[in-house]
Amino acid sequence: MITPKMKQLVAGGSVIRAMFEEGRIMAEKFGAENVYDFSLGNPNTPPPAAVKEAIFDILENEPEMMVHGYMSNVGYEDVRKAMADNINRKQGTSYTARNIIMTVGAAGALNVVMKTIIEPGDEVLLQAPFFGEYLNYISNFDGKAVIVSPEYTNFSINFPELEQKITPKTKAMILNTPNNPTGAIYSEQDIIRLCDILRAKQKEYGHAIYLISDEPYREIVFGGQNVPYLPCYYENAFVGYSYSKTLSLPGERIGYIVAPDSLEDFEGTVAALSVANRILGFVNAPSLMQRVVARLGDISSDMTIYQENKKELYEALTSYGYEMVEPQGAFYMFPKAPGGDDKAFCEAAKEERILVVPGSTFAGPGYFRLAFCVSRQTVQNALPGFKRLAEKYHLKD
Amino acid sequence: MITPKMKQLVAGGSVIRAMFEEGRIMAEKFGAENVYDFSLGNPNTPPPAAVKEAIFDILENEPEMMVHGYMSNVGYEDVRKAMADNINRKQGTSYTARNIIMTVGAAGALNVVMKTIIEPGDEVLLQAPFFGEYLNYISNFDGKAVIVSPEYTNFSINFPELEQKITPKTKAMILNTPNNPTGAIYSEQDIIRLCDILRAKQKEYGHAIYLISDEPYREIVFGGQNVPYLPCYYENAFVGYSYSKTLSLPGERIGYIVAPDSLEDFEGTVAALSVANRILGFVNAPSLMQRVVARLGDISSDMTIYQENKKELYEALTSYGYEMVEPQGAFYMFPKAPGGDDKAFCEAAKEERILVVPGSTFAGPGYFRLAFCVSRQTVQNALPGFKRLAEKYHLKD
Repeated sequence: MITPKMKQLVAGGSVIRAMFEEGRIMAEKFGAENVYDFSLGNPNTPPPAAVKEAIFDILENEPEMMVHGYMSNVGYEDVRKAMADNINRKQGTSYTARNIIMTVGAAGALNVVMKTIIEPGDEVLLQAPFFGEYLNYISNFDGKAVIVSPEYTNFSINFPELEQKITPKTKAMILNTPNNPTGAIYSEQDIIRLCDILRAKQKEYGHAIYLISDEPYREIVFGGQNVPYLPCYYENAFVGYSYSKTLSLPGERIGYIVAPDSLEDFEGTVAALSVANRILGFVNAPSLMQRVVARLGDISSDMTIYQENKKELYEALTSYGYEMVEPQGAFYMFPKAPGGDDKAFCEAAKEERILVVPGSTFAGPGYFRLAFCVSRQTVQNALPGFKRLAEKYHLKD
Repeated sequence: MITPKMKQLVAGGSVIRAMFEEGRIMAEKFGAENVYDFSLGNPNTPPPAAVKEAIFDILENEPEMMVHGYMSNVGYEDVRKAMADNINRKQGTSYTARNIIMTVGAAGALNVVMKTIIEPGDEVLLQAPFFGEYLNYISNFDGKAVIVSPEYTNFSINFPELEQKITPKTKAMILNTPNNPTGAIYSEQDIIRLCDILRAKQKEYGHAIYLISDEPYREIVFGGQNVPYLPCYYENAFVGYSYSKTLSLPGERIGYIVAPDSLEDFEGTVAALSVANRILGFVNAPSLMQRVVARLGDISSDMTIYQENKKELYEALTSYGYEMVEPQGAFYMFPKAPGGDDKAFCEAAKEERILVVPGSTFAGPGYFRLAFCVSRQTVQNALPGFKRLAEKYHLKD
């Protein structure tokens, strides 16, 4: 008697999560060191020592009833102020605590925003390839995902198709930069162009079209590129942020929403976000972790390993004949699947004990995603397997 | 452009949460010690020392990448096994890790269960008075709450009305024992009678009717009463549990679902619960807190204060002329509102700087809820105000 919708979701499953489980089983069978699991965005670099120090210090010095107790559904006021101050320093914004809603990770943040703005039948634009969970976050509220097909030369925004697909029912667009699964960063030029289009359409249709920026990878940038901060370019923008990657705390579920003053009906929107956070069952972001991230400011995990992994993998794989757009950020690359059939290639990779995810999971069929948030060892030990796969598929012929 | 549904919810607000905010403001104005805030179920007794010790020990001795990292969406296997073992010891059940899904508190648990079983239009029975958030958890999935009016003599189950209100669309009933807001514990006799009725209706209608037991107060029992464990009486039962009250960790959002093997389509249901936990945006229960509660077993906060508060308040208030059913558990009492108009009474109480919540918030108009999870001092200092209110309303005339 589970709902037909859930039955379908269970049958479809999450390819990534299934691989995570499969990876665990393979690791038990062959030994963890003999399985090269590039399937999940689970950071391999430890949290900075400051996380542990902050926890110890909070537990020793802050009143425990406050540290573990209820607070306003939007989070502790001082924590929200710390988040606002930190963003202001980096983005030149002038946020205060009232612009910040602490959430159960970025996944929580996106669901809270969706609950607030999406009515059944509302359309939400997704630029492919994209993180497949967005489909569920939209469907949770009976919204309709409208997929813009990839712009294959550099995985930027496919403007001609995007413009065609905006309708009077378009309520929002989710943008993920740096991007999972491609590692692309949308350029300032593209962001300005996108915002101009959305602004014109808002005017034409007489209602708000929201830009929702999902930014868990904001701090992971390889070439010093600028990652434009969307609220600086567009009035009706939300930002969803997570500490999962920056502080290597994905299990702790801690993040926030930025709701700028420029939002249509700002007061009403923030009140609604607070209610949504409560009634969806989050209630509030985990309290101790709120207090931890507030203390950490710009401290982050040592993310040089992602840069090193990217460099080695990009150089080796392209030298073997794999074709790909060089990632600019995040910890993913999205090469063309040898042979063209992404699912078949990912199956073939398993024979080399390499776990990678078919691009179709990200609305990018014909490609595969490689999450390189793994140890240097895993990268190096996996290379011979990637080479054999390249030979098998005659990539150099 | 927030949705009309959200606009309504914002306008309606949470009376309890609004009072929490009001209490903060009053505390700033009059000094915290001069405001008697009985509005929120925020435990006043500190977490046991073992919580802090467990956190320190975990951070010193368990691998930090595991402690803060992703795990299966249902939670760490060893944590789930610890939960199962603990329940088995107390309830004589034979659960294993596969019967446990770790969740973001009981609110998360209930939403995950709703997502799994509720289709639009499905009816969910609620025995009034009940925790008002259930209405939102049902409405999140376009279910329809069907309210059974209170059985006023002892706030047990109103069987004649319940039987009338079961229809072919009835999919579930949420039961909360010990009860918020009444402090009632449903007797074994009543549970057996309820299960017989539901079982007969399942047969008649040819589909599962689920009993969902919301049990955050299971450990808070005053007279040594037995709190029947629903899965021992009914096949299609879920339990939602939270450590918010037992360990005084309401801000940390840690709890679990029990899904017994006896559920219809057990395997499919557990798979669906896991997917629901992921796609609703919880992803997984906060990881460090999972590891903490797994270590604590039966350790709990010192809850004798609730017993003492209850005794003093019950004796004093009844001596002043307030009428109420004596609470058997949880940390709430639900007296008749002097004058009959609960909202008016709660406003009048504010003049005594006493914050209590109107019964209508719990589908129990004409009553008020008093959350006595406060300090002994607060209880004692509030008594003169309660006495003056009693005199004002001529309760003894």
